[in-house]
Amino acid sequence: MIRVGVLGASGKVGRAICEAVEAAPDLELVAQVDQGDRIETFVDTRTQVVVDFTHPDVVMGNLEFLVANRIHAVVGTTGFDDARLATVQSWLVENPEVGVLIAPNFAIGAVLSMRFAEQAARFFDSVEVIELHHPNKADAPSGTAYRTAALIAAAREKAGRGPSPDATSTELDGARGADVNGVRVHSVRLAGLVAHQEVLLGTQGETLTIRHDSIDRNSFAPGVLLGVREIAGRPGLTVGIDPLLDL
Amino acid sequence: MIRVGVLGASGKVGRAICEAVEAAPDLELVAQVDQGDRIETFVDTRTQVVVDFTHPDVVMGNLEFLVANRIHAVVGTTGFDDARLATVQSWLVENPEVGVLIAPNFAIGAVLSMRFAEQAARFFDSVEVIELHHPNKADAPSGTAYRTAALIAAAREKAGRGPSPDATSTELDGARGADVNGVRVHSVRLAGLVAHQEVLLGTQGETLTIRHDSIDRNSFAPGVLLGVREIAGRPGLTVGIDPLLDL
Amino acid sequence: MIRVGVLGASGKVGRAICEAVEAAPDLELVAQVDQGDRIETFVDTRTQVVVDFTHPDVVMGNLEFLVANRIHAVVGTTGFDDARLATVQSWLVENPEVGVLIAPNFAIGAVLSMRFAEQAARFFDSVEVIELHHPNKADAPSGTAYRTAALIAAAREKAGRGPSPDATSTELDGARGADVNGVRVHSVRLAGLVAHQEVLLGTQGETLTIRHDSIDRNSFAPGVLLGVREIAGRPGLTVGIDPLLDL
Amino acid sequence: MIRVGVLGASGKVGRAICEAVEAAPDLELVAQVDQGDRIETFVDTRTQVVVDFTHPDVVMGNLEFLVANRIHAVVGTTGFDDARLATVQSWLVENPEVGVLIAPNFAIGAVLSMRFAEQAARFFDSVEVIELHHPNKADAPSGTAYRTAALIAAAREKAGRGPSPDATSTELDGARGADVNGVRVHSVRLAGLVAHQEVLLGTQGETLTIRHDSIDRNSFAPGVLLGVREIAGRPGLTVGIDPLLDL
Repeated sequence: MIRVGVLGASGKVGRAICEAVEAAPDLELVAQVDQGDRIETFVDTRTQVVVDFTHPDVVMGNLEFLVANRIHAVVGTTGFDDARLATVQSWLVENPEVGVLIAPNFAIGAVLSMRFAEQAARFFDSVEVIELHHPNKADAPSGTAYRTAALIAAAREKAGRGPSPDATSTELDGARGADVNGVRVHSVRLAGLVAHQEVLLGTQGETLTIRHDSIDRNSFAPGVLLGVREIAGRPGLTVGIDPLLDL
Repeated sequence: MIRVGVLGASGKVGRAICEAVEAAPDLELVAQVDQGDRIETFVDTRTQVVVDFTHPDVVMGNLEFLVANRIHAVVGTTGFDDARLATVQSWLVENPEVGVLIAPNFAIGAVLSMRFAEQAARFFDSVEVIELHHPNKADAPSGTAYRTAALIAAAREKAGRGPSPDATSTELDGARGADVNGVRVHSVRLAGLVAHQEVLLGTQGETLTIRHDSIDRNSFAPGVLLGVREIAGRPGLTVGIDPLLDL
Repeated sequence: MIRVGVLGASGKVGRAICEAVEAAPDLELVAQVDQGDRIETFVDTRTQVVVDFTHPDVVMGNLEFLVANRIHAVVGTTGFDDARLATVQSWLVENPEVGVLIAPNFAIGAVLSMRFAEQAARFFDSVEVIELHHPNKADAPSGTAYRTAALIAAAREKAGRGPSPDATSTELDGARGADVNGVRVHSVRLAGLVAHQEVLLGTQGETLTIRHDSIDRNSFAPGVLLGVREIAGRPGLTVGIDPLLDL
Repeated sequence: MIRVGVLGASGKVGRAICEAVEAAPDLELVAQVDQGDRIETFVDTRTQVVVDFTHPDVVMGNLEFLVANRIHAVVGTTGFDDARLATVQSWLVENPEVGVLIAPNFAIGAVLSMRFAEQAARFFDSVEVIELHHPNKADAPSGTAYRTAALIAAAREKAGRGPSPDATSTELDGARGADVNGVRVHSVRLAGLVAHQEVLLGTQGETLTIRHDSIDRNSFAPGVLLGVREIAGRPGLTVGIDPLLDL
């Protein structure tokens, strides 16, 4: 049993994580801390791993305390730039056995689909991305689709692949989607959807489609639990959950 | 057994139709006619229905002969404008028991998916169209996708439906597709594909997707056979296979 | 503005309907009634249409009152057998201008997809059904899939269509799914899903797929509102929302 | 330019490979050999890589000659058991700089989708496989689906994953598919399809779908060309194209 604590335990995400930890047979929820609570609780309860979904204003203080007290951390709080990552790394120098995981996206399916798309990209003549979201989304394409297309484009360039073939000579404006480094990206906005993405790869006579569907906000939970289980075995700073997936 | 003849029997499409007729247990292939052959063969063989996939230059002569000889016709040859249709109709006045079917598209799946999209359009907040084709296609969107979107737009307007909701405020050029009368259409071009189309309809908590996949050029055959079986029971001129589908 | 009341207004479904009515520009929520409240409120507030999502034990009393007071009703409460329907019809004889809609399923997408599958079934050589649900579902296949397959089978039989072709001679037990009147049905159970169904129809060179995805419990709301808007124009008893869809 | 020869050049597959080689800008087709032709042609023409799609009866003789003459080989001919592979390996001992690739399946998309499914399997609570083929197929499930399910099952077992959750208590016989080492596999047979497979993986709130579509028999060509390009850099025996994909 891993002894787990949660920072930001009263927030919406924090509560979902507490529930997920309690439901996992190999994890024990030993401490819940939020604004106004004593962070020393984690020491008192001999917490081994703390999950932090708090706020950019307080997360650095939290991490300094956790590393100093040799408690591993799994962090979903946003706002980490290179300077902050360097600071965390400097703390880890003095406690090199501590593991800190900082990840912008804990949805395993999203991370896997990006990685698979990147791996497959160079084997196919053609590749396009379709992302589909609820109609309240402000940006098109989504950040994930943009990043996916950029990874695909880089993988293809590295492999010496030219652009996808396209004989379009008559186009109604916008029909062929947006161009992200040579990869076409299409954004659908539809009531009844949440967050979905398809990467379509094609070559002579065959296609490969990698589709990710996310239908609720708790899709981060399995990724967080994976981090909790793995971080003790990965001392030092880990950015993103990709390295944990051992692909 | 219906006695069937084929005009343009040596062409690629004609041969495929001959094969399909021969494979059908309720149809008998009694005459094959092509350039240089005598069209009177159809009379000699007491052909009941002739399928015509020939050329705009000769199809009118063919039809005049067939109607005058009281032979039903199923026509996939292109080039029929209003004037030509009116001429055919004038011939039918004198032989009102003859049926002539002229259709631009015999792919039953394509016709059904267009019809279903049109019927469903007014019940959903949102609708978008994605069409996916091989990369040698010159136009984007496809003619079928354009027509589908236009039918959807008309159905929504008739029902007093406003535009699909869309909060996009930051768009990479082209991401949201082309705009056909207010309906967004996305064109994917991918090696390994042939001709595919998806209509996505969405409302609170649910979506309906109507997808059509066409993977070979013979997808017209079932529609042609349907026409052959039905045309004797539909005297006069029928345009498009929709009326035969009894939806 | 239609004046709408809700019976069972404090229940989970009732609250969702109240919200949906309040959000609709052409509807006014004038009365909310639940256990312990006076049903006469609907008369006092001149309610025109009442939505009833209550309980089989009380719904008949509710309907008797509503019909007698010439208030239209849209009913999602379950438990209506032929005897109950006959009783409702007998009340309507005395108030023939009142409309009562009783429907087991208000998800428009589900109803449309069943109808389209039924309409398309006779034009294709092959048809199979795949339904996909969350892993807590007790029955396989789902009731909707069973009904869809039965409708398809009936439509094919009526059109003289034989069974779908199938050359399977070596089968691992269960691979080809369940047999519902000759139509194969496959049940997928997967974490992360809610309720989904695909009808696949195929003929030479082309396939048509009708897919319905339902991802939250509020997918009944648009169907209920459709009923509220249409029922005043449909005096007498209407069973199921199909007739309202004018397909 | 790599100098390429083809053994079995007059067969259906051989001709398709000749065309593909000729169409590739970095490959030169220098020799075509079939039954009755002299295999020494490959030496005369200084062929660097030979593609062999011949017959189990002659392939061993071909390979012995090629290895002895230090010509790399890409082999799609079937019938290699452990004894044959050991024999090939013994020839390679004497010519260790020669590369021989023997692969049962050159469809890159199929190989990638199997590999991705295997890699992703342990991160999801649930996984099922749906394979869809033309109705003339004799076995259900397909060999590829069986192998995919077995790989998934092994990956899950290795990771200590239990079975996918499933609360089914009432099942119409066959609805839940076939059981391959604990993984459910569903086989659809539909006119208009060729060869398709979906692996569905799900966890709380999200699903990942890996779909492969193969619509013509030439889908082996890109995999063969990949082998031709890579085999010179991979001395010794390589079985399957997986190692070439560097995943």
